[in-house]
Amino acid sequence: MARAWERPVGTRDFFGDAMRQRNQIIHAIRNTAKTFDYDEIETPMLEYSQTFQFGLLRDDEERLFRTFDPAGHTLALRPEMTTPVARVAATLLAREPLPLRLMYAAKTYQTPTLRAKQTIEVTQAGFECIGDEGLEADAEVIALAVRSLQALGIQTFRIAIGHTGYVQTWFEKIPETLARGLRQAMLEKDWVQYETELKPYQSATWYDAVRSLPRVRGTRTALLQARSAATDPAGRACCDELLTLFDLLDLYGVLEYVHVDLGLVLDHDYYTGPVFEGYAEHLGQPICVGGRYDNLLGCFDRPLPATGCALFVERLMRVVAEPQEEEERIVVRYVEKGRMSALSFAEWLRRKGSIVRTERMPSDAMGAEGETAGGCSGGIMRVLEVSGARVHGDVRLQDDYRAFLREGGITC
Amino acid sequence: MARAWERPVGTRDFFGDAMRQRNQIIHAIRNTAKTFDYDEIETPMLEYSQTFQFGLLRDDEERLFRTFDPAGHTLALRPEMTTPVARVAATLLAREPLPLRLMYAAKTYQTPTLRAKQTIEVTQAGFECIGDEGLEADAEVIALAVRSLQALGIQTFRIAIGHTGYVQTWFEKIPETLARGLRQAMLEKDWVQYETELKPYQSATWYDAVRSLPRVRGTRTALLQARSAATDPAGRACCDELLTLFDLLDLYGVLEYVHVDLGLVLDHDYYTGPVFEGYAEHLGQPICVGGRYDNLLGCFDRPLPATGCALFVERLMRVVAEPQEEEERIVVRYVEKGRMSALSFAEWLRRKGSIVRTERMPSDAMGAEGETAGGCSGGIMRVLEVSGARVHGDVRLQDDYRAFLREGGITC
Repeated sequence: MARAWERPVGTRDFFGDAMRQRNQIIHAIRNTAKTFDYDEIETPMLEYSQTFQFGLLRDDEERLFRTFDPAGHTLALRPEMTTPVARVAATLLAREPLPLRLMYAAKTYQTPTLRAKQTIEVTQAGFECIGDEGLEADAEVIALAVRSLQALGIQTFRIAIGHTGYVQTWFEKIPETLARGLRQAMLEKDWVQYETELKPYQSATWYDAVRSLPRVRGTRTALLQARSAATDPAGRACCDELLTLFDLLDLYGVLEYVHVDLGLVLDHDYYTGPVFEGYAEHLGQPICVGGRYDNLLGCFDRPLPATGCALFVERLMRVVAEPQEEEERIVVRYVEKGRMSALSFAEWLRRKGSIVRTERMPSDAMGAEGETAGGCSGGIMRVLEVSGARVHGDVRLQDDYRAFLREGGITC
Repeated sequence: MARAWERPVGTRDFFGDAMRQRNQIIHAIRNTAKTFDYDEIETPMLEYSQTFQFGLLRDDEERLFRTFDPAGHTLALRPEMTTPVARVAATLLAREPLPLRLMYAAKTYQTPTLRAKQTIEVTQAGFECIGDEGLEADAEVIALAVRSLQALGIQTFRIAIGHTGYVQTWFEKIPETLARGLRQAMLEKDWVQYETELKPYQSATWYDAVRSLPRVRGTRTALLQARSAATDPAGRACCDELLTLFDLLDLYGVLEYVHVDLGLVLDHDYYTGPVFEGYAEHLGQPICVGGRYDNLLGCFDRPLPATGCALFVERLMRVVAEPQEEEERIVVRYVEKGRMSALSFAEWLRRKGSIVRTERMPSDAMGAEGETAGGCSGGIMRVLEVSGARVHGDVRLQDDYRAFLREGGITC
């Protein structure tokens, strides 16, 4: 049995610098989204579990945290935000002009896998552009991701761009069980497994092309090569889409951050077109993920093309510099008999914009040596001591105190 | 069976003005807390259900949403934030200097009651001051609540202050089942029920005093009367505490907002001393609630006095004026052949600090009458149209466009 004071495995508490860092990350992403006129949205933590029946891989459906409402309906803690946003877009926002440009910052929950190490709670901040079928929308969302990462001051990051359709054109040509196995290997980026799955098919006409799929990586040149390797118009069309996407990303000035990776496959069923994943230096897991999902809205009876991106806040916390807490805090210390003037003075300082905490000391403590050293963790600190008529503390604060008394503060 | 596109009963989606209002409310409370040097904290949505075994009334325990982790432990969605904050204070923050001053803004979950009308999801923003037994801490937390409500621009609100100990001194003198019944009636503010429960005891010596308990309301005078009515030192001590508390609240300049209500009882078991509840005009439910809980931390093996307050964000949304969205948004419209210059110009504007959305139009649409009217919901809007060499749109934006071209923008 778990003990009352334990925190569930795979969750975290945030406070102090880590909390400030979290707020700064979400603030920066929110502000970036705003410059593109993305409107923030918030949905409930709990949805009917039916809401998630589309788009989740079968394994993921088993990873939902489920509970029940009083009427006996099965509720699920949201495992991601794209599906709830799609639900809102299809219902409450049905009359808003298209495209919808929506932004969110929210916690999501999935039971742990070996791959995700134990983590059950992930904060995602992201964007959805709904109702625009054009590659401009895909480019905009990728540009938003890059701008957000830039706003966070992350120096070194890369966005890998793949295409669900291109992979699909090949997987349609091969046995279904093999396609499933290869897809899983791609998802896990397990290239040894990929080769092993493929080995029995060395004599197939498609063997070389499928084998080289995960190796099509790099710049526009790699994309042109993949285009010539494509044996059907659908494959070539996918490559053309990515070439146009690269042109558009050039307009946003973000081309230096992106590269092609045709072996990229993502872990939701709902992706249909260009997909992408972002990586930061020295971090084994992606910091953002996204792509086009043209069929998801149709599941909610409002067929609309869409594309989006989610950034992983806790992972970003590992690559973003911790914020420097530079703000001055004032500690007003007092003994019992100085209480009235101390509390009034503290309030006077707050009204003037200062951050002030008050500390009641034992009656015999005032004026003792060394006592001004502690009492406040982090930040810059100034201490004043108010005790009857005696006022200790630093010079600037003493000046403030005299001004407070002149303005009719309670005299002591 | 619930349908995929339905939202669970008792939850809400937020977007547009309502979302901006939410963010503004939380921002204002966070900033107010900061001036008192309260540090923000965030805990997981899920806790082991054992964590909530203290302090919840028996009925409330049945109102927990429960789920399971892969190891089979029972998890609960947090029904309130004081208990998780107490858990963190007793564990991770065990070495921080006291008192801990902590702030949070978080969603909480309880299955619906008739009284709460179906709502299962409540956003609470609040403060906890842990490790200070003095009434200064109670006063500080109440002052924080008042300052927050002032910061939100709420004109008319009142804080009722009661005392768990004072009620208890009377309830110890009467039959246990009666005390339970009266407590429940007080909790529901059902004064008819209160009288009905009490009626069989008209001959008891304590009848008049207990009957008048919920009627001790008003200013300091009412408190002095209650003090004389008290038949034992414990009751008088509680009144003295409240009198001192009123003196302290006077120092904070918030006395005009508070009044005594000795019939005030709150719905958590953990309260031990002064308690309070805030009301706004024309709203049937409290907008904030709080009080002293000196025994809760001991349940987590770190006995510490504590006091705190929670504000209810969704209720505040009903009394706070909706924010005026005054920010200018720019819409850059273009047809296919103007795409490059349009997207580059939009990005140029964003870098200069503007909020810009782009809209691709059908090729034959450009220049048609009336088209500049729609396309953006809410806010002020300026529209420019980029189409090959022709540039329509408003004068200021045309000037910007010319500046963009001069700075080496892609010419069209």
